[in-house]
Amino acid sequence: MTTDVLHDLALALPGVSLATDSTTLAAYAKDQGPVQELVEPLAVVWAETVADVQNILRWASRTNTAVVPRGAGTGVSGGAHATRNCIVLSLEKMNRILDIRAGDELAVVEPGVINADLNEAVRPHGLMYAPDPASYRISTIGGNVATNAGGLRCTKYGVTRDSVLALDVVLADGTLIHTGHATFKGVAGYDLTGLFTGSEGTLGVVVGITVRLRYLPREVRTVAAFFPDFRTAAAGVLAVGAARVQPAIMELLDGATMAALDGAHGSDLGTRGGALLLIQTDGFGAEAEADAVRTVLSGLGGTVTSAGSAEAERLVELRRHSRGDAVDHELRVGEDVAVPRSQLVHYVAELERMARDHGVRLKVVAHAGDGNLHPTFWVSTAEGAAGAARLDAALDESITVALGLGGTITGEHGVGQFKLRWLSQEQQAEVLELQRRVKAVFDPAGILNPGKAIPGT
Amino acid sequence: MTTDVLHDLALALPGVSLATDSTTLAAYAKDQGPVQELVEPLAVVWAETVADVQNILRWASRTNTAVVPRGAGTGVSGGAHATRNCIVLSLEKMNRILDIRAGDELAVVEPGVINADLNEAVRPHGLMYAPDPASYRISTIGGNVATNAGGLRCTKYGVTRDSVLALDVVLADGTLIHTGHATFKGVAGYDLTGLFTGSEGTLGVVVGITVRLRYLPREVRTVAAFFPDFRTAAAGVLAVGAARVQPAIMELLDGATMAALDGAHGSDLGTRGGALLLIQTDGFGAEAEADAVRTVLSGLGGTVTSAGSAEAERLVELRRHSRGDAVDHELRVGEDVAVPRSQLVHYVAELERMARDHGVRLKVVAHAGDGNLHPTFWVSTAEGAAGAARLDAALDESITVALGLGGTITGEHGVGQFKLRWLSQEQQAEVLELQRRVKAVFDPAGILNPGKAIPGT
Repeated sequence: MTTDVLHDLALALPGVSLATDSTTLAAYAKDQGPVQELVEPLAVVWAETVADVQNILRWASRTNTAVVPRGAGTGVSGGAHATRNCIVLSLEKMNRILDIRAGDELAVVEPGVINADLNEAVRPHGLMYAPDPASYRISTIGGNVATNAGGLRCTKYGVTRDSVLALDVVLADGTLIHTGHATFKGVAGYDLTGLFTGSEGTLGVVVGITVRLRYLPREVRTVAAFFPDFRTAAAGVLAVGAARVQPAIMELLDGATMAALDGAHGSDLGTRGGALLLIQTDGFGAEAEADAVRTVLSGLGGTVTSAGSAEAERLVELRRHSRGDAVDHELRVGEDVAVPRSQLVHYVAELERMARDHGVRLKVVAHAGDGNLHPTFWVSTAEGAAGAARLDAALDESITVALGLGGTITGEHGVGQFKLRWLSQEQQAEVLELQRRVKAVFDPAGILNPGKAIPGT
Repeated sequence: MTTDVLHDLALALPGVSLATDSTTLAAYAKDQGPVQELVEPLAVVWAETVADVQNILRWASRTNTAVVPRGAGTGVSGGAHATRNCIVLSLEKMNRILDIRAGDELAVVEPGVINADLNEAVRPHGLMYAPDPASYRISTIGGNVATNAGGLRCTKYGVTRDSVLALDVVLADGTLIHTGHATFKGVAGYDLTGLFTGSEGTLGVVVGITVRLRYLPREVRTVAAFFPDFRTAAAGVLAVGAARVQPAIMELLDGATMAALDGAHGSDLGTRGGALLLIQTDGFGAEAEADAVRTVLSGLGGTVTSAGSAEAERLVELRRHSRGDAVDHELRVGEDVAVPRSQLVHYVAELERMARDHGVRLKVVAHAGDGNLHPTFWVSTAEGAAGAARLDAALDESITVALGLGGTITGEHGVGQFKLRWLSQEQQAEVLELQRRVKAVFDPAGILNPGKAIPGT
């Protein structure tokens, strides 16, 4: 059957790039998320035009073949993992910036445009594309839309959804639709643009994105504050809020994260405190806000960098690029829960207790401005199945406790394949069923990225 | 049949306030939108608890009775107009602020809470609820959610959707669901919170709203700039953007609006220019931003108020409260299109041409920061049907031209009943059909606010 399907595919799509060699299949079998069971796709196809995507989906509908859409494959929840008898539809060649309209403060891009490339292109206009996942140098806008990606600047500028004005989407049957508008505001009809954003390729394939751009800040100021412990540093987050300062970036690093950075970069952060708070302010008020931040954090006993500190800026860049560190001989899982801001201290104390209880290692970094934490748990691979089981138990508990505090299982990475197991802990059965029925409206045959984002598909 | 239904309703809901007297039915037959055909409801019921709403909807499902949910009735698109054989479900008595969590920067409210009352309650915490429709003193948060209301501060702080974190919603069959999360970020499942926001009571009845709060700005600065003509004033909007200033408020008033304000308040705006740009900056950079605004606008030939001008602040308040002015002997319709920002000048020139072509009067005010315009067209009622026909023709053309520029038929008021006729000009048939099918997922019998928001329901 497989050979028949592929033969049919090649015949149906004569001009479309297609690969079935083992190297390619292996390379496109997974994204950067945890793999529970490696499955290779039947084939990888690369769309170069909207018509290609339509033809591919028409073929897939006709042959009832599952389609896994894929950007750069940098997701970390397995949203682009291949599934049984699927083809992977890569959008990476649809990477043109179609329009930059500086006066309208928007741009129109194909899904394969790299986040950083869009920012480079709009910078000469004094504009930026605000959502900045840590992967921004390698991830695509289409992938960012699929996961409703967050980033460091979310606390001030919002997540991907907040910068998406309109979408061109190909539905499972090949129909091309347009949602949204080229204006900042608009309330005609239901918010389908928001519905597609974050739907992880399960409702349609996004082939065009109209994004809102923001002003490139004229001024940026950065403050680093070392604290004796996490508790005081997290209190600093609330104190900055009480001072009514809206930082663009507010990152909180625990001692283990500082030690890891020291190990990787030869720095001496660990000698200077047990927790680090990095705050960046931007815009016309950047200087005044940074002054207020320094006053507030010094008052709490923080050791605060002076104005114009180059070190503070370097630390933010280090943090920005400290993504997904794989380590030999270690089994690692990065988490992505979010909790209400006021619960940061309590939650991290709980994480530390869990790490002790389950005998796993832990480090924590948080987008503290919005309560989104990335704990990393790890054990030595030498511990085998017993270590893996302890890791799983710690993960499970970390999610249950976050939910108990009113949090969510995923702040910005998406559910993908990896987090499906926890979704029913967060969302009631009726809500899951509604989502399955919404999915059926857009993709009645269930060919689009099955087994991702919502259970039972 | 009507008597039977009402008898059944009274029996089914013994504890619920219910009215069928003619004064009440007339008062609840419509909101502030244009009325094409006045229809009175069978009854008005007031829910006081979530259980009341559930019981009412269970009853409505059982008897297949249409339900029109209603907040304060301040909408201007007829979204709360009664329809044939419906009951009006008023949420105005569910008006408690359930929780203010300052550390988490959020509040939980019932739908009937007045927007201004929420702001008063959170002010002592140094916080604000940012979305500020002109009706904020009289409109409810539930109504704001139903229409995804905009306001003056949207350009900086976003629309209602951007401040809604989670919703409690009763579905047509009485099922209570919870969507979203008590965190700023969260990407678990589809964005049902966004789907309900702006759905105008057609997908469910919102009974609880978790809103994100923002910092009450420490500083606010206001600049008023008079220009000889609209073209130059609108150029000022783009120039402020090019200076990378992000105002909280940026309102553009044409000469006719200034004349109307002079008539109503005895001011002399008309002697000072042909267009007025009002800009408010806020936050730590307010002063520096206002300085930059003054420099930019003076450079364009604007007559700019000096720093600390009380007049500029007074003008913003005047603008803020200049809502929906009914005038005796005049047939008036206010519009709500949005166009890409760079098209403001062109679009207003087109509006002026249409007013001449169709022989109607015109004034225009715009939330210029986001290209959302409120043109008001009017004729004398003495002109009878001929005048009304010219008014309709002008309205039609104003919408067609806005759409031709890449705009939308409604920036912030909603489609309701009044704008349904234009929706298919903006949205393709496939998109309208998808929305009907989404509606059917949530409300299969079609009892929730039929004939509103999307056509064919």
